[in-house]
Amino acid sequence: LKDNKHAKFRIDFLELHPIDQAEFFITLDKDERQTLYQILTSEEMAGVFQGLDFEEQKDLITETDQYYAANMINHLYADDAADFLSELEHSEAQKLLKAMNLEEANDVKELMAYPPKTAGAIMTKEFISLSSTNTVQEVIEKLRAEGPNAETIYYLYVVNPSNQLVGVLSLRDLITAPSDIRVETLMSPRVVSVIASTNQEEVAKIIKKYDFLAAPVTDDEGVLLGIVTVDDVIDVLEDEATEDFGDFTASRGATDVNVTSFKAARLRAPWIVLLMFFGLITAGVIDQFEETLNQIVLLAAFIPLLMGSAGNAGTQSLAVVVRGLALGTLEKKGLFQTLLREFYTGMMIGLICAASLMIIIPIFYGNLMLAFIVGISIFFSLSVATVIGAIVPLIINKLKLDPAFASGPFITTVNDILGLIIYFTIATALLDLL
Amino acid sequence: LKDNKHAKFRIDFLELHPIDQAEFFITLDKDERQTLYQILTSEEMAGVFQGLDFEEQKDLITETDQYYAANMINHLYADDAADFLSELEHSEAQKLLKAMNLEEANDVKELMAYPPKTAGAIMTKEFISLSSTNTVQEVIEKLRAEGPNAETIYYLYVVNPSNQLVGVLSLRDLITAPSDIRVETLMSPRVVSVIASTNQEEVAKIIKKYDFLAAPVTDDEGVLLGIVTVDDVIDVLEDEATEDFGDFTASRGATDVNVTSFKAARLRAPWIVLLMFFGLITAGVIDQFEETLNQIVLLAAFIPLLMGSAGNAGTQSLAVVVRGLALGTLEKKGLFQTLLREFYTGMMIGLICAASLMIIIPIFYGNLMLAFIVGISIFFSLSVATVIGAIVPLIINKLKLDPAFASGPFITTVNDILGLIIYFTIATALLDLL
Repeated sequence: LKDNKHAKFRIDFLELHPIDQAEFFITLDKDERQTLYQILTSEEMAGVFQGLDFEEQKDLITETDQYYAANMINHLYADDAADFLSELEHSEAQKLLKAMNLEEANDVKELMAYPPKTAGAIMTKEFISLSSTNTVQEVIEKLRAEGPNAETIYYLYVVNPSNQLVGVLSLRDLITAPSDIRVETLMSPRVVSVIASTNQEEVAKIIKKYDFLAAPVTDDEGVLLGIVTVDDVIDVLEDEATEDFGDFTASRGATDVNVTSFKAARLRAPWIVLLMFFGLITAGVIDQFEETLNQIVLLAAFIPLLMGSAGNAGTQSLAVVVRGLALGTLEKKGLFQTLLREFYTGMMIGLICAASLMIIIPIFYGNLMLAFIVGISIFFSLSVATVIGAIVPLIINKLKLDPAFASGPFITTVNDILGLIIYFTIATALLDLL
Repeated sequence: LKDNKHAKFRIDFLELHPIDQAEFFITLDKDERQTLYQILTSEEMAGVFQGLDFEEQKDLITETDQYYAANMINHLYADDAADFLSELEHSEAQKLLKAMNLEEANDVKELMAYPPKTAGAIMTKEFISLSSTNTVQEVIEKLRAEGPNAETIYYLYVVNPSNQLVGVLSLRDLITAPSDIRVETLMSPRVVSVIASTNQEEVAKIIKKYDFLAAPVTDDEGVLLGIVTVDDVIDVLEDEATEDFGDFTASRGATDVNVTSFKAARLRAPWIVLLMFFGLITAGVIDQFEETLNQIVLLAAFIPLLMGSAGNAGTQSLAVVVRGLALGTLEKKGLFQTLLREFYTGMMIGLICAASLMIIIPIFYGNLMLAFIVGISIFFSLSVATVIGAIVPLIINKLKLDPAFASGPFITTVNDILGLIIYFTIATALLDLL
């Protein structure tokens, strides 16, 4: 590129996988990028574009003239184009849509109109549909013509004259069939499909369950609208895992590594401050028991241990239930069964902890009363904590509320408060008794 | 099935997707299952088998005679057979392997010999390889013959006479090419491949990055050994997410929903007890400051708030770094840059929390000194907590140690201890000063 050997460079560059082209592209400086825009057609540049991050894509658009940019977006798959344009500012997106090829622009607009995180929003329009009366030979000719533009040609969808999905045929079945046979005898009439408003997580579960490479998306009347491919599903699964992770760690929407510390603080501080205010409730609870605390100051020393154990036990239950819901393994068991199991588990773990502490505390602190108070408290706290950890996500799931409320730190805070009340109530009662 | 309409049932049943067949199978009682074994051939039963969980598979094997069982395993893909037999008891697995077809058994044994969680362990042997001198027509004939047994026919791998991988050809390219052209002119000689000892997470990253449907696996000399398909990769990604989840919630290896409460307690109790022992260290730290605590008992009331905030801030940093490592976005930034960013973020969040508390505590508790102690402590605790939360997973990653040590609860415990030392040191110093 530097020695002006453009023709040679062009051939070498186009031999690379688009993802590697994109990795090479981001190492270039401004002048080199301008040269590249001149060497490559907008269609070739579309391959590079698709491998870039959103910010890099935005830079590319501003660096090229509008005609080149719009033409490049014409050559993207409609779902990739819709993803990019949805993230762009509205006026910018409209300008590009107007400059685009009309048919392409309409496809993209259609996808942008679906609510985010639904099958409609993540599907692509570049699929191949057949009529059931086509012969194998006709289908192969169709593939030669349309194949290069379709996102996948490995699943071929069969529609009736009103475009309703009636069957599916894999390229595998097609290639092993005689050439004069008709699609209707080859196709499988039992097609697993999703409707456009289906949540993307549901779509991912279906594709994962059946090991599909793609799933067709229809409207309520069964009219074929698009397909969701397995590579989109991998992205969905990663996004959902990131989201669950964020909920567990009070960092929802803030786990991006590549932001400044100021932006990170702005995104993360609200969670910390909110949870700190809950912490003020625990301070208030302890304050109520100041008198008890005055009698045995050492009670304070075991607050962290008790709270930590209850927090950990609750988080374990939460993890089991959230993971079970995500993987769909929980549905086989009943709700009540699950709660009961968590309660028993909590009691058993509580017993082990209580027994250990009733041996250790007298040895280190020579205080039998303290050992008794802490031991009984940890048993009750853990039994309650596992139930809280399991019941909250189950309720959230039933009510279809925002699962962030079932996040680890919130459950831990609830368990902290309950644990402290149990601890100081038992301590106060035992001290009064003596 | 109940009315003895076996022939009709057989046709209906075989029309179902194997996954749905499996779902139907587990609803059957023992007698019905025995009838099914008689109706279906071992090959047809292999489809059902592949859709079952390990425990269900084990039951099926014990219910059928050894000849039927071995024959069924012959018809599984080698990777599925290896997965099942590796989980089985050694003697049981050996018995089945001996009863199997020799060639199949050798393939399965080869896969079982690779270390778990490597490309070799998750790859399949059922792939299609071509010679570069084959013509398109010859390849299509080969696909007709071998296609039904291959796990995917969408990627065809080209090898030289010593079986070394030299190129790849997609079925898509093949179908759109004239029938007399040779493979060598069609194939892409730049094949992205992995070697058999590659970690499964690495394989998943590559397939995800390039949106592949499969990736070829070779030995050190480039000899083609097998392929990893995208559906295996989805399972790997889910497993890794579950594992990360387990590490974050002190429930590593214990998030399975379908175990008894006794087994759940046995799996989960070690984590809780281990962390409880760490909690004894925090109790020891507080015990050291008993005198300070005697002077202001109310200091105890803010222990949960301080520890909770430091714990949450540390877990946020941990989440950012762990997610960044998992998605590969962190590699673009330097290690030191990341730590510095987390430190600044911690200071900023710390400042906000300190300011809020210095206003709120005097209002509710009328104690300026307490407000001052808690405010300064939270500022320092959060600044330290974010750095600890970020540095530990980075070190673990560099040293390639078990990431469970960087899990949320461990980092929270370290932050608890540091936070308490900061809190009581500041409190003692300020009280001495006055």
